[in-house]
Order: sequence, then structure tokens, then C-alpha cells
Amino acid sequence: MKFDPSLLKYDVQGLIPCIAQDHATGEVLMMAWMNEASLARTLETGAMTYWSRSRQAFWAKGETSGHVQRLVEMRVDCDDDCLLALVTQEGPACHTNRRSCFYTAVRDGERVVISDPL
Amino acid sequence: MKFDPSLLKYDVQGLIPCIAQDHATGEVLMMAWMNEASLARTLETGAMTYWSRSRQAFWAKGETSGHVQRLVEMRVDCDDDCLLALVTQEGPACHTNRRSCFYTAVRDGERVVISDPL
Repeated sequence: MKFDPSLLKYDVQGLIPCIAQDHATGEVLMMAWMNEASLARTLETGAMTYWSRSRQAFWAKGETSGHVQRLVEMRVDCDDDCLLALVTQEGPACHTNRRSCFYTAVRDGERVVISDPL
Repeated sequence: MKFDPSLLKYDVQGLIPCIAQDHATGEVLMMAWMNEASLARTLETGAMTYWSRSRQAFWAKGETSGHVQRLVEMRVDCDDDCLLALVTQEGPACHTNRRSCFYTAVRDGERVVISDPL
């Protein structure tokens, strides 16, 4: 069956969450939002393009930082309301310069930083 | 610093997305939502407890199916608005009886089912 981005389930703001996972290592790098247009653009170009909720604009990942994310394969979940993108990531995915945004663990009730900036 | 679930950034419905990842294999199993109370309960009990948006009730994963998810480690992202739970999963995570909810890939513009029910 043809994949039609318009048939996914978007929230009231027209957005769908997209998890970016390192294709090679399985590390979960980040979660950000897409709308139908940014998803279509991602599939067309192979460059991960989110929708910035703060700027209300396309967010071509790495466009200014150079930390580009290339799409290896897009997957969609059983409810058609969440995306999982397998990617290759140049350098850090996180704006703190860490590889992954999920660098804070909860251990014994404390916030523990478990990775350093690259 | 102490981890305080009330200091995370919830959406207007009081919810935060939580990605469940297989602790051992790195496979992304599912994404579901938590509120502050279900997160606190998850941390207290070690049993992954989401918030069901359709039922507006706690959703203790596997309570009826037996396909329990145990928390190994909770992580939070740089913006405090997304959770990543490393888990052990009994059997399938997906209601279709597949290990992961992300069993549909987009390949050459087509939806391709890439895994079978267990």
C-alpha cells in the first residue's frame, strides 16, 4: 500500500512526534515534531526536517550547525500517530553538543548526567 | 539534584511522551504518554505505567495481557519534555502481538510490514 503522509494521525496542531534513532548503534538521539509538509520534505530530500514549534517554521536539522541527520529509513507505529526515523547523525544531535538529548538519567531519585559534550 | 516529576514540561493536557526502548537490544518498542502521577507511579513501582488518553485512566502496561514492561532506567531529555525508558519487555509490546509497534517501514513510497506477530 502506498504511504500517504496525509493519512497519519496528527494532533490538534497538525503535528506528529518523530523519534530519531542512530541506525548503526540503536542509540535514541532525540524526539522532535513533524507536520505533514516536513515529513514529505524529509522523505523527498533524505534530510531530516522537523517542524519547529517555537519558530513555527521548517527545521532542517543541522542546516546551521552542520550536524546533519540523514534518513536511512522511516517507520510508523501501529496507530499511525508516531514516527521512528533511523538516521545517520553527523556529530551531536543535541543542542548541548552531546550525541543524544537523553543524557540525564534518574538514579536513586537524583538527576545524573551520564554523557559529556563531544 | 533531586529528580522532581512536577518540574518536567507537560503539554496542555498534562502529558509527556515516553519512548520505551528494550534495554538489552536497543530496539524501540513503543511510544506512549505519561502524566505526572503515572510517571511517579512508574518510578515507585518499577512497572511501566502510562496514561491512557482514550480511557483517561492509568495504563499499567501488561496488567491484563501479562506483557509487562519493567523499568530499568528512566531518562529525560535536554528540554525536560520527553522521557526515554529503558525497559525489559515480556513478549510483545504491541497490541498486534508484535515485539515493537514500529513494524511498518516506508520503502520506495510503500508501507511495508517488516515484522510478524510473535
